[in-house]
Amino acid sequence: MAAAAKEAIENLWEEVRELSLGSTTTQIDHLSSPPSPLQFLRDYVSPNKPCLISNSITHWPALSLWSSTSYLQTTLSSSPVSLHLTPTGRADSLTPHPHSQPTSPPPSPPTLVFASAHVEKVQFSTALRMVSESNTTDTKCFAYLQEQNDCFRNEYCGLSQDCDDHIPWASEALGCLPEAVNLWIGSHLSVTSFHKDHYENIYAVITGEKRFLLLPPTDVHRMYVRQYPAAQYHFSEDTGDFTLKLEDPVRYVPWCSVDPYPSSEDKDKEMAQFPLYYNGPKPFEVTVKAGQVLYLPSMWFHHVSQRPDSRGLTIAVNYWYDMRFDIKYAYFNFLQSINYLSPSDSAFRREQMGSCSKVLTSNQGDESDMITYVQNGDTSGLYDDDDDDD
Amino acid sequence: MAAAAKEAIENLWEEVRELSLGSTTTQIDHLSSPPSPLQFLRDYVSPNKPCLISNSITHWPALSLWSSTSYLQTTLSSSPVSLHLTPTGRADSLTPHPHSQPTSPPPSPPTLVFASAHVEKVQFSTALRMVSESNTTDTKCFAYLQEQNDCFRNEYCGLSQDCDDHIPWASEALGCLPEAVNLWIGSHLSVTSFHKDHYENIYAVITGEKRFLLLPPTDVHRMYVRQYPAAQYHFSEDTGDFTLKLEDPVRYVPWCSVDPYPSSEDKDKEMAQFPLYYNGPKPFEVTVKAGQVLYLPSMWFHHVSQRPDSRGLTIAVNYWYDMRFDIKYAYFNFLQSINYLSPSDSAFRREQMGSCSKVLTSNQGDESDMITYVQNGDTSGLYDDDDDDD
Repeated sequence: MAAAAKEAIENLWEEVRELSLGSTTTQIDHLSSPPSPLQFLRDYVSPNKPCLISNSITHWPALSLWSSTSYLQTTLSSSPVSLHLTPTGRADSLTPHPHSQPTSPPPSPPTLVFASAHVEKVQFSTALRMVSESNTTDTKCFAYLQEQNDCFRNEYCGLSQDCDDHIPWASEALGCLPEAVNLWIGSHLSVTSFHKDHYENIYAVITGEKRFLLLPPTDVHRMYVRQYPAAQYHFSEDTGDFTLKLEDPVRYVPWCSVDPYPSSEDKDKEMAQFPLYYNGPKPFEVTVKAGQVLYLPSMWFHHVSQRPDSRGLTIAVNYWYDMRFDIKYAYFNFLQSINYLSPSDSAFRREQMGSCSKVLTSNQGDESDMITYVQNGDTSGLYDDDDDDD
Repeated sequence: MAAAAKEAIENLWEEVRELSLGSTTTQIDHLSSPPSPLQFLRDYVSPNKPCLISNSITHWPALSLWSSTSYLQTTLSSSPVSLHLTPTGRADSLTPHPHSQPTSPPPSPPTLVFASAHVEKVQFSTALRMVSESNTTDTKCFAYLQEQNDCFRNEYCGLSQDCDDHIPWASEALGCLPEAVNLWIGSHLSVTSFHKDHYENIYAVITGEKRFLLLPPTDVHRMYVRQYPAAQYHFSEDTGDFTLKLEDPVRYVPWCSVDPYPSSEDKDKEMAQFPLYYNGPKPFEVTVKAGQVLYLPSMWFHHVSQRPDSRGLTIAVNYWYDMRFDIKYAYFNFLQSINYLSPSDSAFRREQMGSCSKVLTSNQGDESDMITYVQNGDTSGLYDDDDDDD
């Protein structure tokens, strides 16, 4: 039975590629013009299949205006915006926590925590300067403008005339307007770790490039989703240093364990730890250039890095449309509940699946190094995640 | 692990109902007018959800013309058509075979065979008379006009002006024209047993009523799909009797084991044998009346019975559109490959899943009572079935 589940799951990885996504390529479809609503729904949303689309937003003033830093500064100068600060560029990602040294069960205590950025409201002009300075090699503080709370229609409403309010062919296909529109301004070091969202996502790049690694929801076991204790960075302006504090009371976040770009010294260890990712089918790869749009289907795992424009900036706007929680979602939950390995296998407990959606925390307690471990396999409430992300 | 699979599968039955189909009803959506192509694709095809549609074919001449037997006789009088004859009204269904008495493994030898009708080319006027006579209580020969080989555009092309060539909103939504259009003329005793098709199906009733029992593809384990040896009825005009002959060489057909309407004396036995069907969520039920159209989504298990018009006939036309073999199909195959029970369970081998699609045979060998058993769980080639059905 255990062997059968392993084989069935691996067959699923292959079959979804053979049937729908392409088994001999890591490329996704590239449309040279926007699809009709029917084509988009039939060929991409319904089969849950990503595509890259050119010539869909060529009329947006943003494509020329936002290359001008002075335009952005003038338009938003005094607007307070939410700046995300980390010591690495990697917010909402797994980070070693120096004080987590549990001595009791479970058998595989996490040495990593799910670290969220220090978020501070600053004037846009200051924020933009700090993101730009993140490109210098001697910085210890990396800034990323990436508040995922419909910020483009709130904090950045001064820029709203520069883009369409929604993506017409997507809105018509999906039968609704976007639930949230978010602006992203990052540097070449801004990275978003593997996760999935419960939204249909239309991702438009304005300046610079974004590079996505994509895995279909059927590959969930390859992401090694585990429960990590939530922690938050705190930045001291006085010292210019970060401290990483565990949330109190403790909160666990199911998150993908795989870093697809480990350092060369970590690579062997990572490959040994996550063989299903490294030895399985390669992720789909797509570079979204300025003026292009990515359809990132709901529930797809994605990792995002970026190449900046000549100023050192990558700017993007994404539109989150409500997904449909239908038979595909029910099938996903079923798949996720099937263990790849048997209970007798020593690795079993570490393979326990959970959800893997970004959960931004607004409350933050006092510092606490106390880690209370959730029962392995306790995934209650995982389907109720707040999903916020790119 | 076995318990976990059982629980996961049962959760899936519930979740797909809670999320999408409705968990407190056995009714399906009823649209009072044809959907737009986008609505049909978004709300029904993509989520793989059935619906009943009124006022979509009111302009078809068939709705008035086909109530006249003399019109049908005149239009098709000399056309040779394929008449399906059985001693029960149940073609393509499981039937006890008197000569199957295997003495060797497997542990659960089938005492049932998959019986196909005796098919004979006769003039339409004769065929229609024989279907009508099937309503008399003393007949030993039940006739059903139900050749599923695009017959409406071939054998019955004389009637083609009476219906649309295709269903416009479905063709636009699905991006293609029908792969096959079939005509069905049956009596109140014509029954089609539980199975599924690899087509999106638009089913239009012209006279009489059709009653469908529907289960979503996620309920595959509840259908007890097993391999049955194929057999064929042979009707002797001389004696007026049927003989049931096993195919030679032997051929196995994966078919649903559940009869939802067992006789009162068989009911307890059936309920004990198929508890997942009888104790699980009730099937969706829909009666399609003359002038109404059913969207029967691909991969849904369906059982069809009928109530005739005043002449004793039920006439319907169905349109088969190619389905998309996408992530939903891959998920289905994965689900089907997961055993509900563990290998150690005595019932396990009988639970082995296969496909469950009607396979009409054209070749037929000499009589043979030799039954060679396929290996339990050998489902190779199941995904390549020819699918023919209502």
